[in-house]
Amino acid sequence: MRNSTRSGVDPFIVMDVMEAARRAEEAGRHVIHMEVGQPGTGAPKGATEALAKAMDQSPLGYTVSLGLPALRKRVAQLYGEWYDVDLNPGRVVITPGSSGGFLLAFTALFDSGDRVGIGAPGYPSYRQILRALGLVPVDLPTAPENRLQPVAADIQGMGLKGLMVASPANPTGTMLDHAAMGSLIEAAHGQGASFISDEIYHGLEYEAKAVTALELTDECYVINSFSKYFSMTGWRVGWIVVPEDQVRVVERIAQNMFICAPHASQVAALAAMDCEDELQANLDVYRRNRALMLDGLPKAGFTKIAPPDGAFYVYADVSDLTDDSRAFAAEILEKAGVAVTPGLDFDPQRGHTTLRFSYARSTADIQDGLERLRVFMTERKVIGEPA
Amino acid sequence: MRNSTRSGVDPFIVMDVMEAARRAEEAGRHVIHMEVGQPGTGAPKGATEALAKAMDQSPLGYTVSLGLPALRKRVAQLYGEWYDVDLNPGRVVITPGSSGGFLLAFTALFDSGDRVGIGAPGYPSYRQILRALGLVPVDLPTAPENRLQPVAADIQGMGLKGLMVASPANPTGTMLDHAAMGSLIEAAHGQGASFISDEIYHGLEYEAKAVTALELTDECYVINSFSKYFSMTGWRVGWIVVPEDQVRVVERIAQNMFICAPHASQVAALAAMDCEDELQANLDVYRRNRALMLDGLPKAGFTKIAPPDGAFYVYADVSDLTDDSRAFAAEILEKAGVAVTPGLDFDPQRGHTTLRFSYARSTADIQDGLERLRVFMTERKVIGEPA
Repeated sequence: MRNSTRSGVDPFIVMDVMEAARRAEEAGRHVIHMEVGQPGTGAPKGATEALAKAMDQSPLGYTVSLGLPALRKRVAQLYGEWYDVDLNPGRVVITPGSSGGFLLAFTALFDSGDRVGIGAPGYPSYRQILRALGLVPVDLPTAPENRLQPVAADIQGMGLKGLMVASPANPTGTMLDHAAMGSLIEAAHGQGASFISDEIYHGLEYEAKAVTALELTDECYVINSFSKYFSMTGWRVGWIVVPEDQVRVVERIAQNMFICAPHASQVAALAAMDCEDELQANLDVYRRNRALMLDGLPKAGFTKIAPPDGAFYVYADVSDLTDDSRAFAAEILEKAGVAVTPGLDFDPQRGHTTLRFSYARSTADIQDGLERLRVFMTERKVIGEPA
Repeated sequence: MRNSTRSGVDPFIVMDVMEAARRAEEAGRHVIHMEVGQPGTGAPKGATEALAKAMDQSPLGYTVSLGLPALRKRVAQLYGEWYDVDLNPGRVVITPGSSGGFLLAFTALFDSGDRVGIGAPGYPSYRQILRALGLVPVDLPTAPENRLQPVAADIQGMGLKGLMVASPANPTGTMLDHAAMGSLIEAAHGQGASFISDEIYHGLEYEAKAVTALELTDECYVINSFSKYFSMTGWRVGWIVVPEDQVRVVERIAQNMFICAPHASQVAALAAMDCEDELQANLDVYRRNRALMLDGLPKAGFTKIAPPDGAFYVYADVSDLTDDSRAFAAEILEKAGVAVTPGLDFDPQRGHTTLRFSYARSTADIQDGLERLRVFMTERKVIGEPA
């Protein structure tokens, strides 16, 4: 059958790494997984208990498209707790993961051919979803001195209809502070571009608190999810916050595109929001892992890393070690037994000289992985790098 | 904020009916719900039990994008059981409901501006999702003598890139037999249009067996779901079957658009497929309800109905009773306490003279509803219809 042009989506290179890791494990090798983008933990216990109870009591049919009213209210409350922002629950729309949020936001705001700016490096699916919708992703190459985040000057004269930012970002973990976020919002609005803020890693921050775009403006779409801080990746439930005058538009798209987010996941998510102790314990693990990474990676020879303000990633410039991150990742997997992600998924232009390390798994794994990396890099130096 | 043209989605008129019904109930009235498009039953008991167990044993993180291998295999087995079709499990893609299937199919096959034929009346979201993707839905008005299904002649010279059919259809419940389906496939392929078959109501059929497009060709996309026969609407899990050469394309779109269907729902769906007794008991209820409808609706005065081969709907031509189905539905709700759906959602051109009655709820409700309709129609006749 004939395929559309828009379906010409790039393959995920990390999938090749994961497949190679799977084959290695099948052959009896022990692999440390620093390539994964999800917590090793499941949903909080309170969440699964609430769902087990609900399954006995309700058919869990469709919910209304905007989501369970109690969940929308509880999410609005979170903005008071986390940011001291007073949010109308009517502006909260429950989505099938942040993926659903992207589809809703892009559809509500952009027409075929519209240009939407995204930072490079960045989450690969921004680019692919935009293309799949007949829109034009515009990569904004970011600079180390700007924490690998776009700045106002990057979008001048780019003819954008939208600007999408992420803080903390994937793959870098870097954040935008009030001033940086504010200047991007102003620059976007100055050229009539809609501002979209991906805040999926909020709650996973280690020094400064993450800033929500809603602290600065109501004229934006904010995308979030229960996947990361709330540790519910496979449940496919998230939310977006939209301006009041956008709720009806988004509701109608959601009615048609999704009907609703999974009911069972909404029930579990509502309960997860009151499992603070378990979630903070998960965060403590990430905090310990991060400290180990910041100590161990430079010792192993990965010295040029972006400031890892949040999330559970470290993004390293390895241009002094390789100009083929894909081959380098394959070598690390083969020789060190550590799976890492080459930067090409995140930055098609410059990702051949970068790697992403995830520290989302157990502390024991991180310790083991760092030791393996240290030994590998020492031996590599002794043997001699390829010229 | 400025909205896109593609976001100009029509409102669901049935939502107004549901809201009016809710207000009536809030005011203390008892309403019979013949407007709903979902079973009153929940997931089979075996499904929720399997999930309760899985929640204790696994973090239920992301699955691979194509879905749990065991579920794909079990779905392929169903094609043997139901149709005697030998299906490669590698062609089965698990989706977040049939909604996810539509997004994948349309994205894989069509580019901005492409024309896609859909039968009118038909499921409203076909039209809205196509528009939201920057595609052009082309209504194909169907004739009662063709069971309100499109026929080959309807698509000649329409310049279609795709043809989407549904059997059993929503809102009519009518089906395409082998010959009718085959002739549509031939006509579509003859003009280079991709053929998509929505088979979400399969399993809910009362006389002849529903025909899958896969009995006739491998060159098609088949869309199905666990929502109807398997009684799992709110779980948002379904599947599509695609030609072998389409699997990679669809996989990459799914990786980016959805990551995966909800893991918990996939676990529940797998178990649901072995709950034949409970599902057949549900079907027995629909069968009884259907018999009551086919007896009671004509007696009440709704005589011009489409052949209700499957699903749980009866679609009535009420042009002898009204030319404003919206007002008529409001009148029925107010005076009879029965919520029904005006045809406008399904057929923008001709839906002002049609109604959809659902018989998805309990038999007691159907009996009560039919009696209310009979009394209402008798009184209406006595008082005199509007000229």
